[in-house]
Amino acid sequence: MLIVMRSHATPEEIRKVCETIEEMGLKAHPIPGAERTAIGVTGNQGEVDVGALEDLPGVVETIAVSKPYKLVSRELKPEDTIVRVGNTAIGCKALAIMAGPCAIESYDQAMTVAEAVKKSGARFFRGGAYKPRTSPYSFQGLGIEGLKILAKVREAFDLAIVTEAVDPESLAAVDEYADMIQIGARNMQNFSLLKLAGKARKPVLLKRGMSATLDEFLMAAEYIMSEGNYQVALCERGVRTFADHTRNTLDLSVVPAVKRLSHLPIIVDPSHGTGKRDKVIPLSRAAIAVGADGLIIEVHHQPDHALSDGAQSLYPTQFERLMSEIGQIAPVVDRTLT
Amino acid sequence: MLIVMRSHATPEEIRKVCETIEEMGLKAHPIPGAERTAIGVTGNQGEVDVGALEDLPGVVETIAVSKPYKLVSRELKPEDTIVRVGNTAIGCKALAIMAGPCAIESYDQAMTVAEAVKKSGARFFRGGAYKPRTSPYSFQGLGIEGLKILAKVREAFDLAIVTEAVDPESLAAVDEYADMIQIGARNMQNFSLLKLAGKARKPVLLKRGMSATLDEFLMAAEYIMSEGNYQVALCERGVRTFADHTRNTLDLSVVPAVKRLSHLPIIVDPSHGTGKRDKVIPLSRAAIAVGADGLIIEVHHQPDHALSDGAQSLYPTQFERLMSEIGQIAPVVDRTLT
Amino acid sequence: MLIVMRSHATPEEIRKVCETIEEMGLKAHPIPGAERTAIGVTGNQGEVDVGALEDLPGVVETIAVSKPYKLVSRELKPEDTIVRVGNTAIGCKALAIMAGPCAIESYDQAMTVAEAVKKSGARFFRGGAYKPRTSPYSFQGLGIEGLKILAKVREAFDLAIVTEAVDPESLAAVDEYADMIQIGARNMQNFSLLKLAGKARKPVLLKRGMSATLDEFLMAAEYIMSEGNYQVALCERGVRTFADHTRNTLDLSVVPAVKRLSHLPIIVDPSHGTGKRDKVIPLSRAAIAVGADGLIIEVHHQPDHALSDGAQSLYPTQFERLMSEIGQIAPVVDRTLT
Amino acid sequence: MLIVMRSHATPEEIRKVCETIEEMGLKAHPIPGAERTAIGVTGNQGEVDVGALEDLPGVVETIAVSKPYKLVSRELKPEDTIVRVGNTAIGCKALAIMAGPCAIESYDQAMTVAEAVKKSGARFFRGGAYKPRTSPYSFQGLGIEGLKILAKVREAFDLAIVTEAVDPESLAAVDEYADMIQIGARNMQNFSLLKLAGKARKPVLLKRGMSATLDEFLMAAEYIMSEGNYQVALCERGVRTFADHTRNTLDLSVVPAVKRLSHLPIIVDPSHGTGKRDKVIPLSRAAIAVGADGLIIEVHHQPDHALSDGAQSLYPTQFERLMSEIGQIAPVVDRTLT
Repeated sequence: MLIVMRSHATPEEIRKVCETIEEMGLKAHPIPGAERTAIGVTGNQGEVDVGALEDLPGVVETIAVSKPYKLVSRELKPEDTIVRVGNTAIGCKALAIMAGPCAIESYDQAMTVAEAVKKSGARFFRGGAYKPRTSPYSFQGLGIEGLKILAKVREAFDLAIVTEAVDPESLAAVDEYADMIQIGARNMQNFSLLKLAGKARKPVLLKRGMSATLDEFLMAAEYIMSEGNYQVALCERGVRTFADHTRNTLDLSVVPAVKRLSHLPIIVDPSHGTGKRDKVIPLSRAAIAVGADGLIIEVHHQPDHALSDGAQSLYPTQFERLMSEIGQIAPVVDRTLT
Repeated sequence: MLIVMRSHATPEEIRKVCETIEEMGLKAHPIPGAERTAIGVTGNQGEVDVGALEDLPGVVETIAVSKPYKLVSRELKPEDTIVRVGNTAIGCKALAIMAGPCAIESYDQAMTVAEAVKKSGARFFRGGAYKPRTSPYSFQGLGIEGLKILAKVREAFDLAIVTEAVDPESLAAVDEYADMIQIGARNMQNFSLLKLAGKARKPVLLKRGMSATLDEFLMAAEYIMSEGNYQVALCERGVRTFADHTRNTLDLSVVPAVKRLSHLPIIVDPSHGTGKRDKVIPLSRAAIAVGADGLIIEVHHQPDHALSDGAQSLYPTQFERLMSEIGQIAPVVDRTLT
Repeated sequence: MLIVMRSHATPEEIRKVCETIEEMGLKAHPIPGAERTAIGVTGNQGEVDVGALEDLPGVVETIAVSKPYKLVSRELKPEDTIVRVGNTAIGCKALAIMAGPCAIESYDQAMTVAEAVKKSGARFFRGGAYKPRTSPYSFQGLGIEGLKILAKVREAFDLAIVTEAVDPESLAAVDEYADMIQIGARNMQNFSLLKLAGKARKPVLLKRGMSATLDEFLMAAEYIMSEGNYQVALCERGVRTFADHTRNTLDLSVVPAVKRLSHLPIIVDPSHGTGKRDKVIPLSRAAIAVGADGLIIEVHHQPDHALSDGAQSLYPTQFERLMSEIGQIAPVVDRTLT
Repeated sequence: MLIVMRSHATPEEIRKVCETIEEMGLKAHPIPGAERTAIGVTGNQGEVDVGALEDLPGVVETIAVSKPYKLVSRELKPEDTIVRVGNTAIGCKALAIMAGPCAIESYDQAMTVAEAVKKSGARFFRGGAYKPRTSPYSFQGLGIEGLKILAKVREAFDLAIVTEAVDPESLAAVDEYADMIQIGARNMQNFSLLKLAGKARKPVLLKRGMSATLDEFLMAAEYIMSEGNYQVALCERGVRTFADHTRNTLDLSVVPAVKRLSHLPIIVDPSHGTGKRDKVIPLSRAAIAVGADGLIIEVHHQPDHALSDGAQSLYPTQFERLMSEIGQIAPVVDRTLT
C-alpha cells in the first residue's frame, strides 16, 4: 500500500502516519519527493483497512498495490494451463469452439443442432438445462431432463458437453451429467457456488460478470481454485456500458490482459457479447484474431421459434461460414481449427 | 413491441413483416408516418424473440414496450407497501434507519455497537454473519455463531435484525434467527436464491446489483414476490461507473424512479455507495432529502480494527451527528425519525 | 510514481529498473516487501512517460501518484473561494440559485420566465443564446439577439446573467453582455475555449463533461485559472452510465469530493442531470442536502411549447415549490436562501 | 414517437393524450393491446418535446423512434462512401493504415518515424501539431512549425498527412497544410468546430467521443456533412467504462453497427483505445478482422523519450510486425494491404 501526503504535510503529520502504520504491525517507508512525501507500507497479508490512515491529518489518499490473487497468477505458474474437457481441451493449439442452442428445448432440437455444429467442426456442445432468466415468467429450462438429453448428444456425436449450474442442486447434477460446469455472468460473485464448483470433479467455465473488473474476474477464479479445482477456463461475454447499439459491449482487450496476468485460458462469447445475430460473425473473427483460446456460440436451427435468445442465435449455415472464416484467421495467431 | 422500418421500405416489405407477426400468433398495427412506417405489435405475453423480425428486409430496429413486471408494479397496487420487520417497519412515516458493523466479529463488538446505535435512534441493527468477500482469503463471517449474537442483540436492545443470506443453507438460518433477510448486490440475479427468499417467512431487503438497470432491479423483486413473499424492500447501494472518486456511484435518482413505477419501499446505503467515511454523512442527508424510506449505515466503534470495510464505517459519534442532521431534514419530506 | 515488481523479480531486474529511472533524471526508492518490491519514483515535474518502464522484465504495473493540478487545489489555497457574479456571488452562505429557460426564444418568453423566477427568489437568470444541439437541424439559439434580451432581463429584474459560450466568437460576445460565462459539458475538454475563458473578464461556470473523472474536471478548471482567471465555479450535471431511468446519472458524491480537493465552489444541475421534470425537485433537495453551493434549474412558462428540452423544464409554480423546499433544508447545511 | 399508457389507463386518459398530440399539430395512432394501449405519433420533423405528454394522467413513458440523421444514413445512400485523401483513400479494398508519432516533436523525429512506417507499408502519416492535453502544463505541440514539418514528410515520402485541428485557427492551418483534418474525441460535440470542418476543402477524420452513443457519433458526422463536406471517415478510439485494465474500452462492435446504419467508412485507433503498447498489435488484428476500413497507430522510434503518450507508441519493428500480421488477415475480409 502507498499513502500519499499533501504537498505541505508537516514532519509531524508524516511521523504520525508512520507511527500509526507501525502500530498496525506493518512497516512504513517514507519516500520524500520534490513536492510531497509518499509512504510505502509493507508487511501486510492481504487487504489493509485504511480508515484510520485516510483520516489522519495531511493524508490525501491511499493506493492499493498488492494483487490479492495467487493461484490464478502467472507469477506463480508461468506456463499456460490447458484445461481438459472430455476428450478435448481448452488452451492448446486447437481452438476450443463451443456451439449449441441457448436452451435445450427437446431431444429433437438438441440432436438437430448438435449434428449441424459437429459437421461444421465444433468439438463442444453448449445448451442450457437450467436457465437464469430475468423474468420469473420466462422459460426456465428443462432441468434434469435437459441434462439427460445433453448426455445423449455426447454419446451420439462425441461432443464435450458444457452447461450452466445455478445453485447447489443443479451443480451436483451438471457435475454428474456434463463434461464442463458453466458458471454464468450473474453468478460470477456467487461465492458459495464458486466454492462448490471448486469441489466438483469437472472443469469449470467461468463467465465474466457484467461489470466485473479484471481483478474481480481473476479473484472469482481464485475462489474455485482455492478449493482444489485447478481446471478453470475464463470467458469474456461483454460488459455493461452506456453504449446501446449492442446488448453488451464486448471487451476484447481483456484477452491479452488476462494472458499477461494469468496462466488460465480464456474464450469469448460474441452471442451474449453483442446480443445481435448480424454482429456474431464479425466479432468471432475479431476474438480469434485478438488471441482468444476459443469461442462459445449460440446456434439454433429455428431461431425465430427459440424459447430464449433467438435474436442472437446463428442459423447452422451461418455457423458454418463462421467456422470457415475463423479457420482462415487461426494460422495468423498460430492456431488450428481442429 | 414496435418495429421501425427504413424510410424507403416498400409496401411489400411492410406486408411481409406484418405477415410474419401474424404467423407468430400476434397482431400487427402498421403506423404510416411522413418519413417511415412503424409497426406496433400486440398480443404477446412477455418477451417476443425478435430474431426473425430484425432480419426481414426493410427493418431498422425493434423496440420493446411492455414492462415484464406485474406484482411489483404500482399499476397493480397503487398504494405504498409498508414492510413489517419485527416490531418496526419500512415505508411508513417514520424513517427506517438500520445501523451496525459490516461484519459481526464478536459478542462484545456487536453489543457495543448496538448500544451506541440504539442510543442514537436506530430501530434496526445490521451486521453480517455470512460475508460475500471478493477474496477467498478474507474473513468470511462467523456464520451461525454470528446469527446467535444477533439474536442476543435483539433481545438486549429491541432492535430489528437485518442480515445477509448468501446460499440456501445460510438463508434458512437467517430466516430462523433474524427479522429480515438481506440479499446482497452480488446475488441480485441469483435467481435460485431469490426464489428461496420468496418462500421464506421473513421480509426481504433486496440490494440493487452493481450494474442493474431499474427494470432488472424490479424484476429481481418480482422473482421474490412471485413465490408468495410480498414483504420486499429495495436498497440502492451505488452502481459501477467510470468515476473513481468513490467506490461506487450512488444513484439517488433511482429513488423517485422506483416510487413512480412500484409500490415497494426503497432505502439507501451510502456506506457501500461511496466506500469513504467522509462521504457517508453528506450522502445520507441527500438520500433522505430525495425521498428514501430509510438508510442502512455501517457503524463500528473501532473502524481501524474492523475485520472488513473499516474505511467506510462511521464512529458512533459520527452516526449520532448523522441522525441529528437527517432528523432536521425529515419534516421537509413529511417524515419523522421515530 | 510507483512501480510494482512481480513477486519473483530478481535483484538484477530491480536494479535494471532503478537504473532506467535514474537515466531519466529521476530518483528511485526501492521498497522491499514480504512478497514483492515496489519502487517509488521522485523528481518528476508532471507526467512521466512510462513506456520504457512497463516493458522492463519483472515490472507488473506502474501507478501514478502525483496530482497534476495546482491552482485549483485546496493544498495551495485552503480557504473556500467565493466567485463574484454581478451583484451576487457563488460560494458564500447564501445559496446561488440560477433559473431560466433552456434557450432564450423571445423577449416576451425571457421576461415572463425571469419575472417568475425572480419572484420565487432566484438571484441568477440562465438561458441559452448559443445552443449546442445534437442535431444540426434543431434550433441553435438566437445568438447576439438572445444576449441583448438577456441584458434587458438583468436591467429589469437585477438578476445576474449566466449563459453559454461555444466558440471564440460567442465567448467574446458573452463576455461583453453577460455576468458569467458558461462552458458546457460537451466543451469541458475544448482546451482552446478554456484558455480563452481564462483570458475573459467575467467569471466562468464550468460544467462537468459527461464522462469526466474528478481529476479531469479539476484539470479543466486549472486550464482556465492557468490563464489568469481565478473566478471559476464548477457544476455537476450528471454523467453517462448504463442506467436508463434518467437521461444521465447525477453524481452527487462529487460535491464533497470536490470540496475535499479544491477550494472552488460547486453547484448542481438536476435538470440535465435527470432529464425528467418529475425528478428535478427531489434531486434539487438532495443537492442542497449534500452540500452544493447552489443549483441551476430550467424553468419555462410553457414547457410543452419550448424550443428545446421542454421535458425537463419546471413550470413556474413547481420552481416556487422547489425554492420553498430547499429553503427548509438550507439551515441544516448552514446555508440561507438569500 | 410512441407513448406507452398504464395498463389501467381509462378511455378518457387515452383520449386526452391523443387530443394533446393533435393540438401539437401531430397525428395520434392508438394501438390497443391485451394489457395496455400504446399511442404512435407521426408527423413530427425531428425531435418532439415530450414534457406535456409525460405529465398527462395514465402515461408511463415515451419512446423516441425517429432517427435524426439523414446525410450519413445508408437509407439515403446505400453504397459505401470512399473518402479520397491526397493520393490515397479510405473505404476502398486497400486498408487505410495511418501511422506516426503522437506529436510532431522535430524535423528529425518526424522524418525518422515516417521513413520507418512508409517502409512497412503505411500510406498515411499521422502526427499532432496541435495537441489537446489534459494538463495546461504538458507539451501542447509545435503548432504551425509542426504543420510545415508534416508538409515536408509528404514531399519526401508521398504519405497522406492526417493531423488534428482544435479550434478555428488551427483548422484553417490544417486545411492548408495537411491532407485530412482530424477532429479529436474531446471535440466530437464541439459543434462550432464541426461546422467549420464542414466548410473546409479537405476530408475529415472524426473520432468518437469518449462516451458517445452511436447516434451521437453519427449526428456529429451529420453536422459536418450538413455544411457541404461529404468526405468524412469515422474512427473508433475506445470508450469510457468501469474497466481499468486498459485506458479505454475499445468497442469493436461499433464497426459493423456503423456499417449497418451508414455508408461512411470507419477505422480503428487501438493506440488510444488501449493506452498500452502490448495491447496494440492484438487489437489491431481484431480491428481488421471485425471489418474496419483501416487503422491509426502511434509509432515512435524512441517511445521512452516521446513528449506525449510514449506508453502506447509502438517501436518501428513492432509496427512492421503489425503490418505483417494484418496483411495475413486482410484477405479473410476481402481486403488488401496496398
